[in-house]
Amino acid sequence: MSKIRDEVVSANDAYTADFGDKGSLPMPPGRGFAILTCMDARLDPAKYAGLAEGDAHVIRNAGGRASDDAIRSLVISHKLLGTNEWFVIQHTDCGMLTFTDDIMRGLLASSLDTSSVDADGWHDNGKSPGSTEGNHIAWLTIKDLTEAVKEDVNRIKDHPLVPDYIPVHGFIYDCGTGKLNAVKT
Amino acid sequence: MSKIRDEVVSANDAYTADFGDKGSLPMPPGRGFAILTCMDARLDPAKYAGLAEGDAHVIRNAGGRASDDAIRSLVISHKLLGTNEWFVIQHTDCGMLTFTDDIMRGLLASSLDTSSVDADGWHDNGKSPGSTEGNHIAWLTIKDLTEAVKEDVNRIKDHPLVPDYIPVHGFIYDCGTGKLNAVKT
Repeated sequence: MSKIRDEVVSANDAYTADFGDKGSLPMPPGRGFAILTCMDARLDPAKYAGLAEGDAHVIRNAGGRASDDAIRSLVISHKLLGTNEWFVIQHTDCGMLTFTDDIMRGLLASSLDTSSVDADGWHDNGKSPGSTEGNHIAWLTIKDLTEAVKEDVNRIKDHPLVPDYIPVHGFIYDCGTGKLNAVKT
Repeated sequence: MSKIRDEVVSANDAYTADFGDKGSLPMPPGRGFAILTCMDARLDPAKYAGLAEGDAHVIRNAGGRASDDAIRSLVISHKLLGTNEWFVIQHTDCGMLTFTDDIMRGLLASSLDTSSVDADGWHDNGKSPGSTEGNHIAWLTIKDLTEAVKEDVNRIKDHPLVPDYIPVHGFIYDCGTGKLNAVKT
């Protein structure tokens, strides 16, 4: 029994009631491109980039970083499903700008429960036990947004499984205005 | 100069013109949950699960798999941004059901260009050189959809950085109808 689960299931019922002919869309993206962006709740890539169902692959993780897993997804997107143009879209006010590996590891070692941030920085609010497993994860935090977009676009372009001819566009989404601002890479 | 890039930028212009008060949304997800789902172009999680901007984190990769990177994102989502309930939503007709690590590695070793699939299986269409780098990546392909959802829900629940009290719901999205079908885990 979960209120959130019930809400998701009823929103889905409403969606299926008006599904139209979307059931016959093919597997490969119709517009032949992919977007890598952040998991941030304020971002809706379908809306901010004008995607209908069937148009484009959307890959999302904390930060919109070119992680090994994002590259796994992009290579599948091109090699098996034919996308030939990619976007890396990170954003202003990203949570990844607010901490470092050391902070995250310290907070997790102290407790697995939710922490909070104030003017002095992050504070652990938790009561449950912590874990040092966080020491074994690169959290892919961001120090400078423009530099992170450049680093990630270049990591993708330079990857040995990515053909040279795929354009990779870098953008920063402005959470205050919804605008995509191009990053020169 | 890219037609796709121009289209994305103009769709974004239209989005910003009607942005309303979304610029003042806070960073933590308002409804306190996260969805892990596939990058597939036919899936729009905001639509199929009823999400407005600001509601929930959305993590997407090839397959909607509980990769190390998806777990990185989920742990950040809970520990730093307060989500307390998660969904793993994979889908019917997923591309990840159509190949294996061996097939992917063979295709990439032969060429980095797009391949195609027919009744006989995958065929390499490419002319550009290949790379054996694919041998070093676990592609996280799927043999049985229900088993993959169970495996991934359990991998998340059992992770040492995930507190016991977070519910993790497993679903399979039906690409033919838009319906979310629960998976017993």
